Amino acid sequence: MQALEQLKKELRVIANLHGAASLLHWDQETYMPAGGGDARAEQIALLESLAHERLVGDGIKAPLRDVVNIGNGEPNKDLSDESQRFVREIWKDYHRAAALPGEFVEELSKTTSRAQQVWAESRKENDYIKFSPWLEKIIQLKNKEIEYLGQKGSPYDTLLDFYEPGMTSVEITRLFGEVRDRLVPLVQKIKNSKVNTGQEILKQKYDADRQWEFGLSVLKDMGYDMNYGRQDRSAHPFTINFHPTDVRITTRIDENEFLSGFSSTVHEGGHALYEQGLGADWFGTPFGEAISFGIHESQSRLWENLVGLSKPFWKHYYPKLQSLFPENLKDVPLDQFYKAINTIKPTFIRVDADEATYNLHIMLRFEMEKLIINEGLPVSELPRMWDDKMEEYLGIRPDTNANGVLQDVHWSFGGFGYFPTYALGNLYNVPIMNQARKEISGLEDQLAHGKLLGLQGWLKTKVHEVGRRKTASELILDLTGSPLSASPFMDYLENKFSEIYNL
Amino acid sequence: MQALEQLKKELRVIANLHGAASLLHWDQETYMPAGGGDARAEQIALLESLAHERLVGDGIKAPLRDVVNIGNGEPNKDLSDESQRFVREIWKDYHRAAALPGEFVEELSKTTSRAQQVWAESRKENDYIKFSPWLEKIIQLKNKEIEYLGQKGSPYDTLLDFYEPGMTSVEITRLFGEVRDRLVPLVQKIKNSKVNTGQEILKQKYDADRQWEFGLSVLKDMGYDMNYGRQDRSAHPFTINFHPTDVRITTRIDENEFLSGFSSTVHEGGHALYEQGLGADWFGTPFGEAISFGIHESQSRLWENLVGLSKPFWKHYYPKLQSLFPENLKDVPLDQFYKAINTIKPTFIRVDADEATYNLHIMLRFEMEKLIINEGLPVSELPRMWDDKMEEYLGIRPDTNANGVLQDVHWSFGGFGYFPTYALGNLYNVPIMNQARKEISGLEDQLAHGKLLGLQGWLKTKVHEVGRRKTASELILDLTGSPLSASPFMDYLENKFSEIYNL
Repeated sequence: MQALEQLKKELRVIANLHGAASLLHWDQETYMPAGGGDARAEQIALLESLAHERLVGDGIKAPLRDVVNIGNGEPNKDLSDESQRFVREIWKDYHRAAALPGEFVEELSKTTSRAQQVWAESRKENDYIKFSPWLEKIIQLKNKEIEYLGQKGSPYDTLLDFYEPGMTSVEITRLFGEVRDRLVPLVQKIKNSKVNTGQEILKQKYDADRQWEFGLSVLKDMGYDMNYGRQDRSAHPFTINFHPTDVRITTRIDENEFLSGFSSTVHEGGHALYEQGLGADWFGTPFGEAISFGIHESQSRLWENLVGLSKPFWKHYYPKLQSLFPENLKDVPLDQFYKAINTIKPTFIRVDADEATYNLHIMLRFEMEKLIINEGLPVSELPRMWDDKMEEYLGIRPDTNANGVLQDVHWSFGGFGYFPTYALGNLYNVPIMNQARKEISGLEDQLAHGKLLGLQGWLKTKVHEVGRRKTASELILDLTGSPLSASPFMDYLENKFSEIYNL
Repeated sequence: MQALEQLKKELRVIANLHGAASLLHWDQETYMPAGGGDARAEQIALLESLAHERLVGDGIKAPLRDVVNIGNGEPNKDLSDESQRFVREIWKDYHRAAALPGEFVEELSKTTSRAQQVWAESRKENDYIKFSPWLEKIIQLKNKEIEYLGQKGSPYDTLLDFYEPGMTSVEITRLFGEVRDRLVPLVQKIKNSKVNTGQEILKQKYDADRQWEFGLSVLKDMGYDMNYGRQDRSAHPFTINFHPTDVRITTRIDENEFLSGFSSTVHEGGHALYEQGLGADWFGTPFGEAISFGIHESQSRLWENLVGLSKPFWKHYYPKLQSLFPENLKDVPLDQFYKAINTIKPTFIRVDADEATYNLHIMLRFEMEKLIINEGLPVSELPRMWDDKMEEYLGIRPDTNANGVLQDVHWSFGGFGYFPTYALGNLYNVPIMNQARKEISGLEDQLAHGKLLGLQGWLKTKVHEVGRRKTASELILDLTGSPLSASPFMDYLENKFSEIYNL
């Protein structure tokens, strides 16, 4: 099919423009001299706008017309099932870009660009009023965007679809409800437990270079291919890819705390394995792209939590860690270390949260986002609602807006619909891991011997290489034989923490 | 003038595409994981081809038609003198790009890309026969390029004009003749001198980190603004710029030799000052670009040789260097160190050559390039001619082709006309420096106190900010009141080395 080849070729060009922009962004966060920011912003904006122009241009539109109904994305029936899927996904990307007028895209881009700066200042100064008009403007623009794109289910579902295609807020509400009903009592029980996990052993001086070395050795064991990747330092850890043969991560090391640097390294490593595992032959096309933000997050959290905070993992790695940090750990038994890294404690800040309470941080954002987008909840009411929900779910009330409603960047870039994918990642990753245990004989034993490549290879075949041939829900159903449910995740949490906290 | 504004705006877009491509290139040479090369080549080629398309597209052509005769570049007479210059220079770039058919550009690009790989293998294997057919093909293509572009003076002058606009091979032949007539006997006299400069003190172990630290401190003193630049390591040192607010250098440190790392750091620093000193308001236009390769080289060599190998400079920096490397230098007096770093000794390899014999390496390449392009000298005769000329000028005969005709990459990328600019840089920099001495009172004294910013500021105003408002020859004439001549450079060499070698 000539049209399909044309589409593949043009999408590859577009992906190369995005890839170049991404390298410029990576450089900005790692090595760029401080004064280079203005010129850099101009270069990135240029590349992104060229990519956008091509996505809505005739190079895509003309061949697309040959294979789909350009009005609604319905594929020609003479295409194979796989090709129908392929062109429908391309049409979705095309349609989303083409439905938005150029001036609107520019206004949104300029507004959110400025709003991110204002947000950073507002958080620093703990000044919600300063940020409010920008947030109002962004909400207006997002409502306009929903109008252009058309409403799916509820208005909020249109935004959700950017990040988690096919997912609905009804479904998330059901899933998160299950989680909340079991998690709030679990956290409460942990709070009342007499067990002291001895977290303070993690809060000593851990030499940064040795932390780095340890993290790198784990990344390599995980199968992160350094021939096609690298790790650098940045203020905020991230994974970025320019092609499956060049997928980079950054991390942040805190010399006075062990867990945050280690967790972020393994977390980003999980994201990177996904990007390295995508099919290079399909580069730039939907089949060479991650399924969704939630599935991406499932891969990072599977490694960070299900592996990186597990007993088998540390059975192998703890002696290595002890030998790197004898001054901190030589007299600490494995069991005590395992408890320390698995401390559950409600905190104000999402990115510092443990694997249990993390989900409650997400739920409150999801509930508020729905109210903001679907019900027009006024911006002025957000701080109080935030604090009330924190108290309801986590039993603590933020001392400041900086530690509350102002803590996250996402709303300032217009990312309504993004947050839920963080918790969905947790819900996806337990059934995926359970399935891996069924299909890989002796997986626990492999993990307990530092042999991580069995798991990585299985994930590559079963998850990474799938690309956008399936939605997240389809993937979970096909892989596990059951539709997505919150039970496996909650079973996992209850089992794990009942043991640790003697519940 | 609306046409001028349109041109400025579109040229800025083109420059941003080149700038993005340059960052991708920088990354490739510094941090890119080894396996990312193929994808990277595709991305760079895409950005360069988009830049080319825009340069020959209507965004340039339409406004250019309003201000010049598009056939010959003659500017409208109602423009100011400066604007006439401006549009004529734009037309030159446009014309050079537009005159070459797309298929030709692609063939040249593919051939030279592959030829560079073959050259690297050929040099490694000392196999000139392997490289020969590629060199022949490239020479054919360069002749075709001359046909497309039209001949100026001799065919070779067309190629020279890429690198040194306005310069002719007749003029270079005259200048290089002057140099040769005085330099060959000077080098011969030095060879016969009884003076031992004690070069071996430089060939001890010098800790790489401390070399780096010393180089950085000199760069900062030179006025290289680290807010708009940075230094990294790479296999071959280079300077690269994405905008005057982001100009980076790389260097290479040899832990068993001091001078090469230091010289390359200061050399690239000189290039970087030029790029940081260009007028940011004119970014992307001829007035925001370096005059020529030769003037660029004059700036690097002025710092590397006229400053970095001078007595006043080391009067200030030598005690610092001694305190960094007491194990090597604490018993070595300044005068002895000064002699060691100014050792003149014929060698096979251009990039290792001292500041005197370097020019003889260039001359032999220039003479051969003229014969190749203007007279059709067969590729099979190059090795013998190379070796004969080395013997004639430098008194040594290369032991292998790898150490002779195969040593430099330039011909493999089609860079005929590039080499002479290296020696022109030397010829330009002495009159420039002599003029600086006249205009900056107490310059020697400043240098002897590590105060390098007076010189840097003067160069910025007098050379860097000029951009392509002048040709190299015009710049030298306007700055010094005299046309370019080889005498100042030869006077400098004879004076300096007569003293060092007691001639």
